[in-house]
Amino acid sequence: MADLPEGWEARGTPPNLFRRFEFARYGETRAFLDALAALTEETGLHPQNINFGTTYVNITVEAAEGAAMGEREYGFAARVNALRPAAGN
Amino acid sequence: MADLPEGWEARGTPPNLFRRFEFARYGETRAFLDALAALTEETGLHPQNINFGTTYVNITVEAAEGAAMGEREYGFAARVNALRPAAGN
Repeated sequence: MADLPEGWEARGTPPNLFRRFEFARYGETRAFLDALAALTEETGLHPQNINFGTTYVNITVEAAEGAAMGEREYGFAARVNALRPAAGN
Repeated sequence: MADLPEGWEARGTPPNLFRRFEFARYGETRAFLDALAALTEETGLHPQNINFGTTYVNITVEAAEGAAMGEREYGFAARVNALRPAAGN
C-alpha cells in the first residue's frame, strides 16, 4: 500500500484517516471548503466528517463500509493536500 | 429578548446556540451548506463551528467575544432555519 499522505494520521476503529488544516483567514478556509466539495463530487468519496470554523478544517475519511482502508482513501487524502493555497498566499 | 428560534438549544459557557439539521440526501446537505456560506458572508456572522457529514449539519453559534448572546445570534439562527429545503423536496 502507498505511504500515508503527508500530514494525515491513521486512527481508530473503524480505521480512518484524519487531518487538521489551518488557514490564515476565512477567505482561504472558504476556498478550501469549496474545492473540497468539488473533489467530493468528482470522486464520489464523501468524508465521514468535516468540522470547520473560521480558520480551520478537520477532515475524517473512513473506508467504505466493509472495505479495507486503501489506495482510494490515500489517493483522496493526497488530493486534499493539494487543495491548500500555495504557501505565502 | 426574542424567543429562541425553533429547534435551537441555548447551551454552555461561553453561551452558544446549537442545532442539528438532518437531510434526506447529500444534494440537500450540499445546498444547505452553500446557502449557509452565503448567509455567513452576507451577515458577517461566522458560526463558531460547523460539523457535517453526508446527511447532517451541526451548527454552533457563539456570541462575539465579550458580548452577550442576543438578537444578532437569534436572528441568524432564525435565518438558518429558513435555509432548509421545503418539506417534501
